[in-house]
Amino acid sequence: MPKLDFDIITLGHGSGGILTNKLLEAGVFDLLSNPLLDTHHDGALLNLTGRVAFTTDSYVISPVFFPGGNIGELAVNGTVNDLAMCGAVPKYLSLGFILEEGLTMAEFWDILVSIKGASERAGVQIVTGDTKVVERGKGDKIFINTSGIGELHPKADISVKNVRVGDKIVVSGNIATHGMAIMSVREGLEFETTLTSDTAPLNHAVLALLDEFGPAVHLLRDPTRGGVATVLNEIARDRNVGATRLGIDLKQAAIPVLDEVAGACELLGLDPLYVANEGVFLAIVAPEVADAFVQKLRTLEYGQSAAIIGEVVAEHPGQVVLTSRIGGRRVVNMLVGEQLPRIC
Amino acid sequence: MPKLDFDIITLGHGSGGILTNKLLEAGVFDLLSNPLLDTHHDGALLNLTGRVAFTTDSYVISPVFFPGGNIGELAVNGTVNDLAMCGAVPKYLSLGFILEEGLTMAEFWDILVSIKGASERAGVQIVTGDTKVVERGKGDKIFINTSGIGELHPKADISVKNVRVGDKIVVSGNIATHGMAIMSVREGLEFETTLTSDTAPLNHAVLALLDEFGPAVHLLRDPTRGGVATVLNEIARDRNVGATRLGIDLKQAAIPVLDEVAGACELLGLDPLYVANEGVFLAIVAPEVADAFVQKLRTLEYGQSAAIIGEVVAEHPGQVVLTSRIGGRRVVNMLVGEQLPRIC
Repeated sequence: MPKLDFDIITLGHGSGGILTNKLLEAGVFDLLSNPLLDTHHDGALLNLTGRVAFTTDSYVISPVFFPGGNIGELAVNGTVNDLAMCGAVPKYLSLGFILEEGLTMAEFWDILVSIKGASERAGVQIVTGDTKVVERGKGDKIFINTSGIGELHPKADISVKNVRVGDKIVVSGNIATHGMAIMSVREGLEFETTLTSDTAPLNHAVLALLDEFGPAVHLLRDPTRGGVATVLNEIARDRNVGATRLGIDLKQAAIPVLDEVAGACELLGLDPLYVANEGVFLAIVAPEVADAFVQKLRTLEYGQSAAIIGEVVAEHPGQVVLTSRIGGRRVVNMLVGEQLPRIC
Repeated sequence: MPKLDFDIITLGHGSGGILTNKLLEAGVFDLLSNPLLDTHHDGALLNLTGRVAFTTDSYVISPVFFPGGNIGELAVNGTVNDLAMCGAVPKYLSLGFILEEGLTMAEFWDILVSIKGASERAGVQIVTGDTKVVERGKGDKIFINTSGIGELHPKADISVKNVRVGDKIVVSGNIATHGMAIMSVREGLEFETTLTSDTAPLNHAVLALLDEFGPAVHLLRDPTRGGVATVLNEIARDRNVGATRLGIDLKQAAIPVLDEVAGACELLGLDPLYVANEGVFLAIVAPEVADAFVQKLRTLEYGQSAAIIGEVVAEHPGQVVLTSRIGGRRVVNMLVGEQLPRIC
């Protein structure tokens, strides 16, 4: 951390004046330096060609520092992953901070360092940003918005419209890890575990898969808030219109969950299907490539536990139906209410 | 407003589950509907060609509803204007909400309606979004991030590097109006006035000026937080390196300020040069086009009070120097500390 003449963030750091400039020049600009950010204009000028994906997410996770990461890398990885889920190669991120008066500069610096590391790992550039400060008690340490731009992969054709009966549903890794890691340190819930969040950039794996399988990858989604159950319900719902209405079958025995996560879920009476993930994606792929897709994914970073967990069916259109380990079948609905606020 | 079975925003509306879907489908998606947003994917797919400007801003203004507008239209206009200041034609916006539990649906709806109206007036599409909810006391009603993408105007060549000795400094309208309108309703400061914020989209005027004057427009900046004084100081500072260091001379008598704003500033002991603007831009233009530029600007929306207020000089490099109405000269520094927090 650079030597600064202030230890905590004050309202003045959001004024746009000398203190804002001091804050940015003392740390942010140097740390995140790249030719585009260095122009210090109101926006960045990019060269883009062809089809481009654009996405945004605000991160309000609590606590800001959690086992396995902090809000900074989460904000980079989350938006990188949203772009990857569109079939795009993430290129540029914006960074909007809403800081609460009283945040220590040491904490802010740690978050900035994580942002830098995460953007390097994902291969994206932070090209433009904004910093606001709100009074104590009008925010919660730090909220971060990242918006992102990516270039569509030339072989990508990702759309819910491409989902067909017989398609296989692949999950890229163990589910529910992020949510349970956050719960383990949440006030009033603390329980002993060595679980860490799975926050990770998924774009490199997705790129390799699109290179090899191209349009046989029909849909990609990352099951963050609301978990696997909610995302699959959204897909079933969106394919519940028009001529070819579709349902989704899941096999509980095939869904990868770490023992420790399964144990913690049981302890708290939670279904891992509803718990948030950060380093996991769902892929709906053509049946003829499904096995090869999973084999390939298992060789890639963050894909070692990949598995086929279900398929798209013509029955029960609009619904997700789970076959349990002991053979029973039940409808899996979308998450009702709030399982755990501010999980991302 | 559509008929809903809830009146206030709860944490569940940020869960990603049924309540989030209800909130979005009951109102947001319908109101802001366009083909790109309607895909409901993690991101939007855009067709872009050539050079593109990308910008972000978070809006935390308090109060959320103020004379002349609300945070919704401010968030659209602000990002539209940042794109225009890059010499770009704004095209697409993202919209990230951080809602405080307890915000009424009626207030949220009013803000959404303003967002719709503002994006129509500016000619931009909201193409992707995100909604988070934080507990009561961890936010302040609503924070909004808008990020934006625009296509660079083919004739634009906007850069601080293009600023030269002799260039004229043009302001597009009366300064300090937004800041004084907000102050007039700020708790502990209330004073009687009919002032309203000048929040407005400046992109149409900028487009017309770039069409006509192209690369003779050397720099564009909107003096929001920190006001005209801070932005001109940033420009002087950025041109205070290398071989051709430059200063800025301002003529107080030429700076347009509404009488009511000047009066309110005097009452509060504030210098209008430091007060925030939302519907005003500064242009630094080649001297040979300056008069024609101002004449044209005066015929355009929001440009009726445009004036040449100063020029770029070889003297006092890095400094902004004001000649007062009575002929005195003083250095105008960047805003120190915080004049009024959360002005945008």
